[in-house]
Amino acid sequence: MRRRILLKVAYDGTRYAGFARQPGQETIEGVLDQTISGLTGEQIRVIGASRTDAGVHALCNIAVFDTESRIPPEKFSYALNRRLPSRIRIQDSFEVAADFHPRHCSTVKTYEYHIYNAEFEDPLHRMYSFHTWCPLDVEAMDRAGQALVGEHDFKSFCSIYTQAETTVRTILSLHVTAKPALTAAMRRGIIPPRDITIRVQGTGFLYNMVRIIAGTLIEVGRGAREPEDVARILQARDRRAAGPTAPAAGLILVSYQFLEDPHLVCPAEKEKEEKQEMPHAPSGTAGD
Amino acid sequence: MRRRILLKVAYDGTRYAGFARQPGQETIEGVLDQTISGLTGEQIRVIGASRTDAGVHALCNIAVFDTESRIPPEKFSYALNRRLPSRIRIQDSFEVAADFHPRHCSTVKTYEYHIYNAEFEDPLHRMYSFHTWCPLDVEAMDRAGQALVGEHDFKSFCSIYTQAETTVRTILSLHVTAKPALTAAMRRGIIPPRDITIRVQGTGFLYNMVRIIAGTLIEVGRGAREPEDVARILQARDRRAAGPTAPAAGLILVSYQFLEDPHLVCPAEKEKEEKQEMPHAPSGTAGD
Repeated sequence: MRRRILLKVAYDGTRYAGFARQPGQETIEGVLDQTISGLTGEQIRVIGASRTDAGVHALCNIAVFDTESRIPPEKFSYALNRRLPSRIRIQDSFEVAADFHPRHCSTVKTYEYHIYNAEFEDPLHRMYSFHTWCPLDVEAMDRAGQALVGEHDFKSFCSIYTQAETTVRTILSLHVTAKPALTAAMRRGIIPPRDITIRVQGTGFLYNMVRIIAGTLIEVGRGAREPEDVARILQARDRRAAGPTAPAAGLILVSYQFLEDPHLVCPAEKEKEEKQEMPHAPSGTAGD
Repeated sequence: MRRRILLKVAYDGTRYAGFARQPGQETIEGVLDQTISGLTGEQIRVIGASRTDAGVHALCNIAVFDTESRIPPEKFSYALNRRLPSRIRIQDSFEVAADFHPRHCSTVKTYEYHIYNAEFEDPLHRMYSFHTWCPLDVEAMDRAGQALVGEHDFKSFCSIYTQAETTVRTILSLHVTAKPALTAAMRRGIIPPRDITIRVQGTGFLYNMVRIIAGTLIEVGRGAREPEDVARILQARDRRAAGPTAPAAGLILVSYQFLEDPHLVCPAEKEKEEKQEMPHAPSGTAGD
């Protein structure tokens, strides 16, 4: 019997040419296709949710595939983790409805952009954050980011190489935080090394959107732009108005929540729910 | 004029054959020798403080070297960081007394052993922690560790390949903590993925000592040993009484404090202090 299996996939994107398969390049999708095909003996092509860029990491991206294999759905995580390279790990696997498509669902995605703010780079942070020695004003960055919350045309925060039909997207929340938090004593003295995190939640993101937001907020943090500039950048609807695209290494897709629990739409459950329809999100499919 | 320079060195030990130079192997000491020699044009051989093992990381290890170069002491960090591979970064550099020796000083070293406790490995944690799916009882581990605090004969917690003359060492503190902390609700339900840290401070450590302590406390955490067993393991003075040596990847040398500030013993200051003698620690030199 043919079944559709959903995988939650975590990966270190450092050495991969991104999520989406590309001829002659090592990609997450390519490795998943090969590994699942090797396990079940079928010709598998997974459908990914978020096509993250080269060097971007994920704690939870989504991939689905169809199989005739008799392996129980929840056992795929164990069986695949034994075969996958250590840079990719399945965090969960279960059956979903035969017509479930991870890019045609209402979702909330959470991205984090990590900045290591210290005079010298820490080698243990180097692959999972962007290092800058310039002390960043985290409060100004957080204030600036609030202009981006809500439904806006994010054309200024989108790569010119986008193929999206519309550049309108909705950011649900954006918070910039630092560890350790800045105390009054630190304000007067030397600021210690800090981990700064830009955490953004939204229903969909454009190509490079989170990295351009990060690049712009970093400019605010070091005083090169005012927090108030961000509203003007949005209005410009011009990529050149925003800051640079921050490096891929700092970006992590941390969670992918389906507003309709995909567990509820697996075949057995579906009958109970009398063919409840899948909601279709208006947001585009090309992620960061 | 000949001067002795102290470097604070951070490194990702993943691909190195340890700190100490070895013929035909890439080591931290070897890379430092080469890089400093290339910068100053001298034949440099650094003296390291802690000879960490293959795969062990450091946020702050210490190396000193002598140079005739006219580069200002504080500029060595900048000049070397431009030449070093990204896995090694100098965090600070300054002049110390000509007879300053990092292994003949009273010091407090802090090590952390990191455990990622979750059903499946997180690829972003894989190089800097030890993964175990078995839920660990962090309170039991912390309780067990308290028997190790103080001056003891740690022969049971020392590699049989040690060259140390005595196996008596002093642990100043040992704490086992987890993030997120376990709540009453979690105790009744599924425990989420957790970062568990064993943090040990001491005046000196034997070969593999922190990793054998970690391996033993992990056995306590999964219920294979009782917290009370640790006192008996100490008394046995036999390596076979303790648990396994936990993998190198989880171990980080996080700080190295000289009880006498090395800044105070640099030549200029030394004259002021009228040839104050360096204290000599009784502890051995072979670190983890």
